Amino acid sequence: MRTMDTDSPSVVVDSTASSAADSRRSIRQYEPTPIPDADLRELLRLAGRAPSAYNAQPWRFVVVQDAALKARLAAAAYGQRQVTAAPATIVMYSDMQDALERMPESMHPGMPEDQRTAGVESFRATFTGQTVEQREAWGIAQSNIALGYLLLLAESLGYATSPMLGFHPEQVKALLGLPAHVRITALVTIGLAAEDGFAPHRLPAESLVTFR
Amino acid sequence: MRTMDTDSPSVVVDSTASSAADSRRSIRQYEPTPIPDADLRELLRLAGRAPSAYNAQPWRFVVVQDAALKARLAAAAYGQRQVTAAPATIVMYSDMQDALERMPESMHPGMPEDQRTAGVESFRATFTGQTVEQREAWGIAQSNIALGYLLLLAESLGYATSPMLGFHPEQVKALLGLPAHVRITALVTIGLAAEDGFAPHRLPAESLVTFR
Repeated sequence: MRTMDTDSPSVVVDSTASSAADSRRSIRQYEPTPIPDADLRELLRLAGRAPSAYNAQPWRFVVVQDAALKARLAAAAYGQRQVTAAPATIVMYSDMQDALERMPESMHPGMPEDQRTAGVESFRATFTGQTVEQREAWGIAQSNIALGYLLLLAESLGYATSPMLGFHPEQVKALLGLPAHVRITALVTIGLAAEDGFAPHRLPAESLVTFR
Repeated sequence: MRTMDTDSPSVVVDSTASSAADSRRSIRQYEPTPIPDADLRELLRLAGRAPSAYNAQPWRFVVVQDAALKARLAAAAYGQRQVTAAPATIVMYSDMQDALERMPESMHPGMPEDQRTAGVESFRATFTGQTVEQREAWGIAQSNIALGYLLLLAESLGYATSPMLGFHPEQVKALLGLPAHVRITALVTIGLAAEDGFAPHRLPAESLVTFR
């Protein structure tokens, strides 16, 4: 998808998921080249294809490209320079209040009406009596499934990323005018890489897997 | 990677991440064909390439293929038939106690020793004073990044999946002999699809994204 010429957004990079998983690394220096909105919209559409329990889809995205806003966002993220270096930073958050309200819309239209109604009630009953903190903790966990999608998809489409958990959440919410109840899942800088970065280091795969 | 002939594990399906995101759907009926261990190991190695905060990698996997054990696992999952229908069910869990102990191993070997030591201390300090519940909630959220990788990668490699959150966690842990402190992230059935499933339904992508 990486479109070097913003006038002709054609897919020029679209690698396999396995090669993207092996090649991906966190990148903190970026080319200033803006990302075409069409590419960002397609990436986030594809990330939103991730499954979630109850099909709740609690993830929401704010794409920050404005230079002044990026500078303020960087300040809310301990001055981490990748936020201003990247042409865009995606602020990903969980909004369970919205997910609860929109559950009728989230139910599969192919289901019989009584099952749809029962599904909405079951979902809402699960979160009745939970605090905002409890339900957004669940929402953040579900949102991370889509974050996994997003990071792998961005790499496969030719874009480098760096996910960040170090920021002042209340400052980020205030900057973007987000409601008090939402919780920030991650900040993800994205753009064309201007450094090689470091090859990721992982625990030996065989030490994490048991066969039964 | 889908290897129809288990004697020659060659990559015969390896699609792009974007086509996998669009084609993936939950599948509950499977061909009885076993999945070669090499394919499962490669899939879980690739899923483990997912990034995590502090590079903590709290995810762990038990691959259940034994028929008797699958039957007991299905019983612990409200009798959901996909568990016995699938040639394998991956029980994914978070083990923050192990992640904390292995943090020296998780630190990037390219970092100077003093930075590695500081990184280990910083990670451990973050979780000091937290309850098992609190730290495993964090571990489950991080594990879901790898779950997103796993589901997208399986699809791209020709394998159908169904992630499940409906099960008795303590029964699953007892069945597999897992320590009391771990938390089950999800059960994921995997195999070759024997049904078409339903095209996923998602909220309109543009309703989840704001540009700033």
